[in-house]
Amino acid sequence: MQSVSAPPQTHWLTRFRNVRQRTAAICRHLKTEDYVVQPIADVSPAKWHLGHTTWFFETFLLVPFLKDYRIFHEDYSFVFNSYYETIGKRVLRTDRGNLTRPTVEEVYAYRAYVNNHLEDLLTGLAAKDFARRNEFESLFEIGLNHEEQHQELLVTDLKYTLGHNPLFPAVPLIPDELHVYNTDAIAYRPVTVPEGVYEIGYQGEGFCFDNELARHKTYIQPFALSHRLVTNGEYQEFIEAGGYQDFNHWLAEGWDWVKQNQIKAPLYWHPIDGKWWNYTTEGLQPVNQHEPVCHVSFYEAEAFARWKGLRLPTEFEWEVAARQFPWGQRWEWTHSAYLPYPGFTKADGAVGEYNGKFMVNQMVLRGASAATPPGHSRHTYRNFFHADKRWQFTGIRLVQTL
Amino acid sequence: MQSVSAPPQTHWLTRFRNVRQRTAAICRHLKTEDYVVQPIADVSPAKWHLGHTTWFFETFLLVPFLKDYRIFHEDYSFVFNSYYETIGKRVLRTDRGNLTRPTVEEVYAYRAYVNNHLEDLLTGLAAKDFARRNEFESLFEIGLNHEEQHQELLVTDLKYTLGHNPLFPAVPLIPDELHVYNTDAIAYRPVTVPEGVYEIGYQGEGFCFDNELARHKTYIQPFALSHRLVTNGEYQEFIEAGGYQDFNHWLAEGWDWVKQNQIKAPLYWHPIDGKWWNYTTEGLQPVNQHEPVCHVSFYEAEAFARWKGLRLPTEFEWEVAARQFPWGQRWEWTHSAYLPYPGFTKADGAVGEYNGKFMVNQMVLRGASAATPPGHSRHTYRNFFHADKRWQFTGIRLVQTL
Amino acid sequence: MQSVSAPPQTHWLTRFRNVRQRTAAICRHLKTEDYVVQPIADVSPAKWHLGHTTWFFETFLLVPFLKDYRIFHEDYSFVFNSYYETIGKRVLRTDRGNLTRPTVEEVYAYRAYVNNHLEDLLTGLAAKDFARRNEFESLFEIGLNHEEQHQELLVTDLKYTLGHNPLFPAVPLIPDELHVYNTDAIAYRPVTVPEGVYEIGYQGEGFCFDNELARHKTYIQPFALSHRLVTNGEYQEFIEAGGYQDFNHWLAEGWDWVKQNQIKAPLYWHPIDGKWWNYTTEGLQPVNQHEPVCHVSFYEAEAFARWKGLRLPTEFEWEVAARQFPWGQRWEWTHSAYLPYPGFTKADGAVGEYNGKFMVNQMVLRGASAATPPGHSRHTYRNFFHADKRWQFTGIRLVQTL
Amino acid sequence: MQSVSAPPQTHWLTRFRNVRQRTAAICRHLKTEDYVVQPIADVSPAKWHLGHTTWFFETFLLVPFLKDYRIFHEDYSFVFNSYYETIGKRVLRTDRGNLTRPTVEEVYAYRAYVNNHLEDLLTGLAAKDFARRNEFESLFEIGLNHEEQHQELLVTDLKYTLGHNPLFPAVPLIPDELHVYNTDAIAYRPVTVPEGVYEIGYQGEGFCFDNELARHKTYIQPFALSHRLVTNGEYQEFIEAGGYQDFNHWLAEGWDWVKQNQIKAPLYWHPIDGKWWNYTTEGLQPVNQHEPVCHVSFYEAEAFARWKGLRLPTEFEWEVAARQFPWGQRWEWTHSAYLPYPGFTKADGAVGEYNGKFMVNQMVLRGASAATPPGHSRHTYRNFFHADKRWQFTGIRLVQTL
Repeated sequence: MQSVSAPPQTHWLTRFRNVRQRTAAICRHLKTEDYVVQPIADVSPAKWHLGHTTWFFETFLLVPFLKDYRIFHEDYSFVFNSYYETIGKRVLRTDRGNLTRPTVEEVYAYRAYVNNHLEDLLTGLAAKDFARRNEFESLFEIGLNHEEQHQELLVTDLKYTLGHNPLFPAVPLIPDELHVYNTDAIAYRPVTVPEGVYEIGYQGEGFCFDNELARHKTYIQPFALSHRLVTNGEYQEFIEAGGYQDFNHWLAEGWDWVKQNQIKAPLYWHPIDGKWWNYTTEGLQPVNQHEPVCHVSFYEAEAFARWKGLRLPTEFEWEVAARQFPWGQRWEWTHSAYLPYPGFTKADGAVGEYNGKFMVNQMVLRGASAATPPGHSRHTYRNFFHADKRWQFTGIRLVQTL
Repeated sequence: MQSVSAPPQTHWLTRFRNVRQRTAAICRHLKTEDYVVQPIADVSPAKWHLGHTTWFFETFLLVPFLKDYRIFHEDYSFVFNSYYETIGKRVLRTDRGNLTRPTVEEVYAYRAYVNNHLEDLLTGLAAKDFARRNEFESLFEIGLNHEEQHQELLVTDLKYTLGHNPLFPAVPLIPDELHVYNTDAIAYRPVTVPEGVYEIGYQGEGFCFDNELARHKTYIQPFALSHRLVTNGEYQEFIEAGGYQDFNHWLAEGWDWVKQNQIKAPLYWHPIDGKWWNYTTEGLQPVNQHEPVCHVSFYEAEAFARWKGLRLPTEFEWEVAARQFPWGQRWEWTHSAYLPYPGFTKADGAVGEYNGKFMVNQMVLRGASAATPPGHSRHTYRNFFHADKRWQFTGIRLVQTL
Repeated sequence: MQSVSAPPQTHWLTRFRNVRQRTAAICRHLKTEDYVVQPIADVSPAKWHLGHTTWFFETFLLVPFLKDYRIFHEDYSFVFNSYYETIGKRVLRTDRGNLTRPTVEEVYAYRAYVNNHLEDLLTGLAAKDFARRNEFESLFEIGLNHEEQHQELLVTDLKYTLGHNPLFPAVPLIPDELHVYNTDAIAYRPVTVPEGVYEIGYQGEGFCFDNELARHKTYIQPFALSHRLVTNGEYQEFIEAGGYQDFNHWLAEGWDWVKQNQIKAPLYWHPIDGKWWNYTTEGLQPVNQHEPVCHVSFYEAEAFARWKGLRLPTEFEWEVAARQFPWGQRWEWTHSAYLPYPGFTKADGAVGEYNGKFMVNQMVLRGASAATPPGHSRHTYRNFFHADKRWQFTGIRLVQTL
Repeated sequence: MQSVSAPPQTHWLTRFRNVRQRTAAICRHLKTEDYVVQPIADVSPAKWHLGHTTWFFETFLLVPFLKDYRIFHEDYSFVFNSYYETIGKRVLRTDRGNLTRPTVEEVYAYRAYVNNHLEDLLTGLAAKDFARRNEFESLFEIGLNHEEQHQELLVTDLKYTLGHNPLFPAVPLIPDELHVYNTDAIAYRPVTVPEGVYEIGYQGEGFCFDNELARHKTYIQPFALSHRLVTNGEYQEFIEAGGYQDFNHWLAEGWDWVKQNQIKAPLYWHPIDGKWWNYTTEGLQPVNQHEPVCHVSFYEAEAFARWKGLRLPTEFEWEVAARQFPWGQRWEWTHSAYLPYPGFTKADGAVGEYNGKFMVNQMVLRGASAATPPGHSRHTYRNFFHADKRWQFTGIRLVQTL
């Protein structure tokens, strides 16, 4: 019953605290040095993630909604803005890893300051009705979901930095255990979907990103989709069959990528004394044949599927079938380019830069990974990366055209 | 009636001669030097186009089908192969413009030699039925269509080379006149299409490329499409309104492209004494406000559409509406990524490398241009280029979601 | 008398402790984060300097001379080797700033461990005569001088990192005060040298680097050399006269460098509200007109001299005149390329890689800077950098041909 | 007697005709296509050399000295200027190979036009004394020597283009025969020079370049120089001893260059069926063990010398000893950086850009090659190239310090 439930503002406070605390918890075993570096442009320093998510709340909620709010430091907007051209100048993405200041301690002080003021704001708003409530709620939800997205990046970025250190340090992150159940222990069942018109896109009362809208009809041809992900063991067969040496399996760009970067296995795999080892946050481990293959690019996923005589699902096939199979272990490459849905509209102002401006030359991933915060994703969620990216927890599901 | 029609083999000979002669006709006003250079990787030397299309007929028709055929020169496969990994090593694409030998004269001798032998082959085959007739016909059709595609590239590549020469030489190409009718003289009529399930892809007896198949159903939301293309005059308003200075109109990659390359107008536009001039194969000309804008990238087309509060059509919308408006003046950027249709299958062997391996990170264009050989394109035809390419004759058609 | 002087081994211990402690003292005000990053390839992380100088003593002194010595960590040779190909694989120079581990604390532990063992070694050797004493002394001297060189790099590299941080933090380094006396307060006196045969190169009992040998004769034309360095005020006149806009003053490579990098002033100079400010380790300061200009490239030094109608000294002119003017404020660009002296010989083994292999495409600098450890340099000392480098404390002295 | 000798102006005319005709003679066997391309930035199109040398005479002699002279084409200054910033804008060096116009025929017409007018000018001046005679003579001499330098570049650039064509065409150039006498047939005699003060630099009445001045004294240590050049056979021993695999022989930059470019032998050497072949303008030929090694970089020359336990001569040693050994077969790398002599002064205006602005980061070569026009070089002549360049006819002479 509505009458006995907590007022929504209490709910706000709890959710805010949980999200903010989870970010800090991911970092609980880090050394100060681990917060600082940026080995490649894709991988931002942990320090930057902590500051940037804080800057987001400060800029989009405290400044417009908290009366007499004084920003923590006038230069932090320059340091912690990511790509919002609307907000002004920003440190070049590739220079984030050169900043030793503000220190980790100063960034945590920034977080505490913004947390305190945001709790004041949330508490204050609880007492009364106010004019721009819808706008506030929308920005607050985006702020929380935005920080959850950066939690996943924190994990993947830290794994990249630690996994490219010659000492291969073991550093527990949240979730403590990035392993997943043994995939091929599950009996294989194909998921078949008949052809017809299906509805795609988010529907409901809860939060979704703008790129999941508008909900719309699509026509789907009949297909059978694998109930489980491709395993390390299956992928190793591809390697051993010379999959990385035969151009026939590859898209032209993928083949160039393989040759230029001398790709021979998924990211984090190392051949040691004739066996494959895998860097995990627990250190180097022998590759587990029964787990889903991970850290592959779209090029590799597509080549593997072609080699098997199958293909990747479109994002629409995936969404239509998603209630019939377990997912959430790994982000799954689809064969769909990241493009606007019919009826997609960009929001006004800086928030409108969130998704729409990246809709070219990227591929959609569906699902979630062990690094995704619980409850963050949903079956209409559209993740997206360039076809050569591998530092996310990305896997492969196969489809057969019927 | 079948009985009175010419035997198909006669038809073959006529078509073969016409296509081959048209290639040479494009080059009829060139100087020897014009055949040689490659100012950017996209732009191949005319000499290379002449040799490569010839090599295609030699490799895929003469060698397998003409008994005792002796190849013209053993090194030409290395020189004139384009991207067929199946066939063996090849000159790097970026080195094509460094080859002074074979000379233009030698390349024409190569063409004559292959033409003669192919006429022998076609004549010989006319007399009899033979085992691999279907395969032969398929490869022969591909050979002709392949050469027609290179005819368009010949025009665009030569225009690029001549248009980047400080002397801005006027050199007539085929078609002699690359201008088109005055677009805005046509009364504007929106083309509206109701929502529903539509069939997409090639159907019929004639030739089509593998990427136009399989024909399949798609669901389309209601839309209104512009009866005519965007004009130079309309595009100039975008420039004058500061369109190239405001990131809000642009995809993030597009905005980076604008800044890095200091893009300020369509390719070939030059500001001279306060007016815009346009390089054409007739030399520098004042920009004609009433012609369709041309030589714009997908980024520019998309930004312009966004600035107008409209959007580009998907390739499916375009195809469904295509019988209701005139097209063929300019290749038209669509908002669809180049991806396989449901049921697409790659052919075996080298011919299978024709289209499928390029299906990532490119955008589809529909229509045809004044440089497209007559009869080459059709309303299911899928052309494709990277989002930043401008040296093709590319224009803009707008759509409104209803 | 020899008998009453301290045994040389005591002297060793004192010198060792002093040098090692001075390195730590430079870092005494750093935050942990300041030790980690590498904003450009030239600038190594402070952490790396601390580890590398320690690795040098471990590799060249403890391993060969201390019985039963156990190396601190088997992977540190890979992490802290710089360019000694003889010793094996090493982290690419450009990747040093991506290593969060070993941590700063671990690196200091490494230093303490090596310091303790080296003190044991030095004390042990004091008691007895031993076979490879000459070799030991030579390597020990190189180790100390090597660490002193890295002390200067520590200062310049930290200044670069801090000076490119948008917060422009003030962080005292050793020496606390990098300022120097007001140059133009000194009355100007030209130093004139008559032509003749002069001896060049080190002579004496003390330590020198191999590149200062062999001492040899050279013929010098008559010249007059400036008694003091060029000041900021004089250099600012060059800027205001359009010196960076007129190719006539520049070497061709220098002019390309100016245009490509949009150079408009010495490194660390910022135009703020119509005045020049200078980043120092005390933060941003107005440019002091009376101090020697600093952080200029060879290209700038040479262009300035040409603009003045004068020239830079050769390293031989500098050395011959060096006893007649004060030096040590700034490294001074000479117009001499870094090449071997007649009779130069490369030492065997890894130590032979110290200097000789860099003798191409660099220019010689003479003198010393405020960041140079006291007593490290001498008038035969040859420093060398590429012509475009500016992050060292580099200044300009002018010469007139007589 | 002066009175019976031909007037100097007749001499001018003969010299002018000879030089200009020799340039055309080098090209007599070229196809039109061979004139056009630029496979690397260093290698200019033959067409450009023909035009640029003509532009030089037009700009520096006809325009200032021939009354009412009308320049041939107003855009040619832009097309054919090389690096003279004084003269105005110019086609970027890397774009020279993209220009199909002006055609070869047009360039020869330009040459004829300028030749005719220059002959008029020379004839006209013969009749009278005129005010700026010294200036005219100086520029005329530079024009002739400049064209001779481009004759050598014509040969080396054409060889590069033809030698990187997969057809390896044989194309006679001038000199018809680039081979040289069998070096090791000559009995070996060391040339020894005692220490002392020697004079360096040009002295006399004839023409020399500004970089050969001022003549000045230098002190030289005693040395013994090889009477003949290093042969292919000797260099092959270096290859077979693993010289390209052992970093110990190499300068650090040289070793990076070897690895990045996978250098394994001199330019134009190809391993075919277990033997070394050499591209020459006569086509591929087995490497002649007895000829001087050619087309090596400074890095290779220096590494070879080090491997032999010897060294390269300085340019001063070379000049002092030059009258005691035969030279002219190959440009010889010295161990001297290209720097101004004491008393060097840059000329005013565009001609002052000729040599001085390149005096950094290049090495001096002495001697001449079979491609050098007869009489062009002399024992004070200073040629210079970057340490990695190999497309000139460059060889090795060894020296021993005594």
